[in-house]
Amino acid sequence: MTSSIPTAAVLLIGDEILSGRTKDANLGYIADYLTVLGIDLKEARVVSDEQADIVAALNGLRARYTYVFTTGGIGPTHDDITADCVAAAFGVGIDHHPEAVKILRAHWARRDIEENEARMRMARIPDTAELILNSVSQAPGFNIGNVFVMAGVPKIMQAMLDEVAPKLTGGAKMLSRTVPLDLGEGDVAKRLKEIQLAHGGVMIGSYPFEREGRFATNIVVRSRDEAAMNAAADEVAALPVELAGGTSD
Amino acid sequence: MTSSIPTAAVLLIGDEILSGRTKDANLGYIADYLTVLGIDLKEARVVSDEQADIVAALNGLRARYTYVFTTGGIGPTHDDITADCVAAAFGVGIDHHPEAVKILRAHWARRDIEENEARMRMARIPDTAELILNSVSQAPGFNIGNVFVMAGVPKIMQAMLDEVAPKLTGGAKMLSRTVPLDLGEGDVAKRLKEIQLAHGGVMIGSYPFEREGRFATNIVVRSRDEAAMNAAADEVAALPVELAGGTSD
Repeated sequence: MTSSIPTAAVLLIGDEILSGRTKDANLGYIADYLTVLGIDLKEARVVSDEQADIVAALNGLRARYTYVFTTGGIGPTHDDITADCVAAAFGVGIDHHPEAVKILRAHWARRDIEENEARMRMARIPDTAELILNSVSQAPGFNIGNVFVMAGVPKIMQAMLDEVAPKLTGGAKMLSRTVPLDLGEGDVAKRLKEIQLAHGGVMIGSYPFEREGRFATNIVVRSRDEAAMNAAADEVAALPVELAGGTSD
Repeated sequence: MTSSIPTAAVLLIGDEILSGRTKDANLGYIADYLTVLGIDLKEARVVSDEQADIVAALNGLRARYTYVFTTGGIGPTHDDITADCVAAAFGVGIDHHPEAVKILRAHWARRDIEENEARMRMARIPDTAELILNSVSQAPGFNIGNVFVMAGVPKIMQAMLDEVAPKLTGGAKMLSRTVPLDLGEGDVAKRLKEIQLAHGGVMIGSYPFEREGRFATNIVVRSRDEAAMNAAADEVAALPVELAGGTSD
C-alpha cells in the first residue's frame, strides 16, 4: 500500500512499565500529538531494558515506518542503555558529544551539581546524531536517521516532542467528529459499516461506555476530508431516529 | 536464556489507542496483575485493526513467550476482527460457538435486546478455543493454545483476567476472595484504594453488576499472601456497616 501519509511507531523502553511499577503516560500523549500533525501512528511496542530486544525492535520499526519515537533509558544509571542500543542498531560509534557535555556542565555549574561518571553518561550520543534539546532538565535526547530518542519522564518527553515537531513532515490533518449515541454498539454495528462503506476515506470507530448504569456508544467519524466526514457523521447522528422507525414517528 | 519463571506478552489491538482517542488503561493493570502472579511480562505491543499486523504480532509473540494476552477487537462491529485474526494465526476455522450463542441469547432475552447479525458476531470463536466467561456484559473472550483473548473495555477485561488466572502457572499462586456488596462502586472506591494501600501485596478489584434492578458490586481481593488477603477482605466486608455510620449507630 503506497500512501503519502507519513507513518510512525513508538517504542517505549523500560522494565518499570512492564512490571507495572510505572504506568505509561507517553503513548497516549504521542498518539494525540501525531494525530494532530497528520502522522499516522501504526504501531507501538514496550520492551525491557535488554540490548538485544531494543536493537531488534528498533531495526524492525525504523525499516517499516517513516518515523520512530523512543522514550526512556537515557538517564544516568546502569540500566539506561538506549543510546548504546541505538548506536548498535545503526552500526555507528558512540561517545561524549561536545555540545551535550557543554550543556550539562553549564547546568551542573548553575545548580551546584557534582560532575561524575554516571552523570556524564547522559552526554553519550551516537556518532552523526543531532541533539534534541531538553528545556526541562537539560540532558538532551537525540535524532539519528528517522529515529527520535526521548526521555521517559513525561514532562521532559513532551518538551522534546515540541523540539522535534518542526523537523517532521506531517500529512493532511486527520479530522474527527464524535457523535454520542444512547444505543448499544450492537444496535448500530450494521449501519455503521454501511455508512463507512458509503463514504470513501472515512473511518468510523465505535467506543462503548457506561453512563448511569446503561451502555451508550461514542461514534467517532474520522477523515482527512471535511465534507465526507460531516456527511457520514450526519448519517450517524440520524441513527436513533432511523432505528426507531423513521422520521415520521 | 532459560528460566523457570513463566513469561508473557500483551497485545493491545485497536486503532483508537494509536489515534490517541482512547488512552489505554489495560497494560498497566495487566502488568500489575502478572507481577503479583509471578509471571514476567517481557513485551507489549499495540497494533491497529489490520489483519496482517495482528496475525504477524500474534504469531511472533506466542512463539516467544509462555502466555500472550490480547485486549480489544471482540465486539459486534465491523472493525472487531480479533477472533478472525486469531483463527488465521492458528490456522483453524471459526464459527458461532454453541455455548457462546446460548450465553448471549439468555442475556439478550433477560434484557430485551434484539438478536441481530452484528451481535451474533460476538459468538464467533475459533475452533478448539475455550470460552473465557464475562461476568460484566456476558460476551465471552476465549483461550486457544497459550493465547488469551479478552475485551478492551477495562472492567470487562479485568473480570476476564480473574477467570483466566486459575489457568495460569505463575511463580507463586495468587489467592483471591470475593466480597459481594450491595453498594455502588462510587460508594466504596475511596475506601478500597485506602485498604489496598494499607495491605502490601494486595490488589483489590471492583466489578459492578445488576441484581434485581439494583446495582451491586463484587469486590475481589487478591494476594499471594493469605493472611494479607484475609485482613483486607475483612475490612472490605465491614464497609457497609462502616459507611452506614459505624457499629455504634
